[in-house]
Amino acid sequence: MVATDIDVQTNAPDPDDPVFALHRGGKMSISSTAEVNNAYDLSLAYTPGVARVCEAIAADPEVAHDYTWVSNTVAVVTDGTAVLGLGDIGPAAAMPVMEGKAILFKQFGGVDAIPVALATTDVDEIVETIVRLAPTFGGINLEDISSPRCFEIERRLIERLDIPVFHDDQHGTAVVTLAALINAARLTDRFLEDFKIVISGAGAAGVAIMKILQSAGAHKIAVVDRAGVIHPGRDDLNEVKQWIATETAGWARPGTIFDALDGADVFIGVSGGTVPEEAVARMAPDAIVFAMANPHPEVHPDVARRHARVVATGRSDFPNQINNVLVFPGIFRGALDVRATRISEGMKLAAAHAIADLVGDDLSETYVIPSPFDPRVATAVSRAVTDTARREGLARRPY
Amino acid sequence: MVATDIDVQTNAPDPDDPVFALHRGGKMSISSTAEVNNAYDLSLAYTPGVARVCEAIAADPEVAHDYTWVSNTVAVVTDGTAVLGLGDIGPAAAMPVMEGKAILFKQFGGVDAIPVALATTDVDEIVETIVRLAPTFGGINLEDISSPRCFEIERRLIERLDIPVFHDDQHGTAVVTLAALINAARLTDRFLEDFKIVISGAGAAGVAIMKILQSAGAHKIAVVDRAGVIHPGRDDLNEVKQWIATETAGWARPGTIFDALDGADVFIGVSGGTVPEEAVARMAPDAIVFAMANPHPEVHPDVARRHARVVATGRSDFPNQINNVLVFPGIFRGALDVRATRISEGMKLAAAHAIADLVGDDLSETYVIPSPFDPRVATAVSRAVTDTARREGLARRPY
Repeated sequence: MVATDIDVQTNAPDPDDPVFALHRGGKMSISSTAEVNNAYDLSLAYTPGVARVCEAIAADPEVAHDYTWVSNTVAVVTDGTAVLGLGDIGPAAAMPVMEGKAILFKQFGGVDAIPVALATTDVDEIVETIVRLAPTFGGINLEDISSPRCFEIERRLIERLDIPVFHDDQHGTAVVTLAALINAARLTDRFLEDFKIVISGAGAAGVAIMKILQSAGAHKIAVVDRAGVIHPGRDDLNEVKQWIATETAGWARPGTIFDALDGADVFIGVSGGTVPEEAVARMAPDAIVFAMANPHPEVHPDVARRHARVVATGRSDFPNQINNVLVFPGIFRGALDVRATRISEGMKLAAAHAIADLVGDDLSETYVIPSPFDPRVATAVSRAVTDTARREGLARRPY
Repeated sequence: MVATDIDVQTNAPDPDDPVFALHRGGKMSISSTAEVNNAYDLSLAYTPGVARVCEAIAADPEVAHDYTWVSNTVAVVTDGTAVLGLGDIGPAAAMPVMEGKAILFKQFGGVDAIPVALATTDVDEIVETIVRLAPTFGGINLEDISSPRCFEIERRLIERLDIPVFHDDQHGTAVVTLAALINAARLTDRFLEDFKIVISGAGAAGVAIMKILQSAGAHKIAVVDRAGVIHPGRDDLNEVKQWIATETAGWARPGTIFDALDGADVFIGVSGGTVPEEAVARMAPDAIVFAMANPHPEVHPDVARRHARVVATGRSDFPNQINNVLVFPGIFRGALDVRATRISEGMKLAAAHAIADLVGDDLSETYVIPSPFDPRVATAVSRAVTDTARREGLARRPY
């Protein structure tokens, strides 16, 4: 039995259970990089010596980047409203995910990430709180904030702050999805521009995937929610879905998921719903199915493989795991290294190509995306980000 | 030349200077306590395993205390308005002090402390921001926030939050000062109740010292600011100083620092000003002088010793260093261990007595307070806090 099959019915903590044993006392701690063993050490690291570093920063704020830990830190900020597939469980219950994210930031990117769980779900309050916290951090990773609030929060923070703001549920997912799709296209000798693509799910991930696929050249895109294909004729659309309807109006036609998948080349599931086998069976030859809902893919990969040439999921126990951990550590590593003012569309595209390129000649139906434990990934992504930042004039420091 | 004499005129960073060399890259980093080396590890520390810890907390918030790092964390929060003796240098320039505090929290108390520098000096905004951050932390240490704003911020946060809130510039200083004074009284065979005490400085530290000395039984207290003794007849007093005037009206008489020190037993300087030798010379026999301004004591200890029996400073290069690091790590260690709802007056008094008691039979004019590097201190303070918390019904967890 693999770890992904851990019984999810029980939620009382059993200290002998490997998950709870690992989480006991939390998953992270602070370390000092300056020893303080005697009065002399204390006089350097604290008063009176520290006053000179403070004065140097007060005289020239640039000094802070070299002489505090701020330039290597990222806040992993949530309000607990959209935690994994669990939904609105609140900030306290979200903390184990934020700690998990933080340790992945450290392990894969060498980034000091700090979980920040907010006791408010008000968009204005979240924005103001993060703006006030900004001197503390070198970047802001938004996490598990529900849609459509997440879009406005991210947009307003990007406007207000000169440090990178990145909603990983959107852009991390979008980048790694694009990377896998680039390789699936290469494997089947086709172009993104020609793909007929169906995205199931119009939340944070679905919207960001639609955007990045458009940036990468795809334009035959239909987005499906619980009520079917999103199109301008529907009267039940919120602002974001109205925008999707407009963006996809040239291609998407009213209908169900069955209609949408009829002859489609690509299915991208980020919905948490299910797609019947009969719908997948209608897809075009050499179909590509990314069923990324976690822990339950929209269609089981064994079923999808009967009808599709390339199948990917979000799970570690099937081939082709589409996992954000391939993205966020390297994105922030690169952005912090050059003190980028923001994470641009160009950086995200470059990151996707860098991830895709690592597969190289090993490309196959069961290897369109590197493993999260491929040690080359974070460096390649970081390099793509720093190169792009320099080219786009977003780098404030040479690297 | 000792480290405390480091040239304070230069503030351009010299990478070869020991202070700047030590601060390069900051003084702290995040460590993971959970290894993530393969897909199985990832499935425990992150998805899907982590979801079960989240669900357990959502079902029972108490679970968070054992299975996240929150219960061992303290935010070290500043707005950068009163940093050391440097004043209002802003949040970015305050960060080296916050990092220094954080590493002392870890080293002396095993507490994971996180620097938080706020880009606002508005009292309402600071309070709201910290309230919204509260699910992230097990306690709040306020630091280097200017007086009198610090009093209102602390009071309102204590009302709003059920985790400990502690303004170290007030209470850390007050506790360690009381500890030294208890021992100075013992050395000279007198009682706090009989001491005629002059406090120079009516900011955060001065007010808190006045309060704790009153709690400990002292009542012959005069507080002096730049304009002389604070008394009800003055028309230049802000709200806090009016309160001081009322509290000390039974003893304090109008006059200068010269008048106040005439026949006084104890001088406590937390002003950053200077006190002339002639004023110190007027004190009673067996005088006690705590000249704690840093790096320049109100009266040089060599001068003070001509007229006083016990002399203490805030500096590490003279005997009797009155240093907050004796207090805050143990205070929070104890408060977190029993999940105290707040830091009570009783805990502070108990902490002061615990620190004083460690001096024991070694008590002398040059040893009224333990060294910051005395390894017994944090444990003794923590024990005093946990015992008091239990006795006062403020402990939410047995220890």
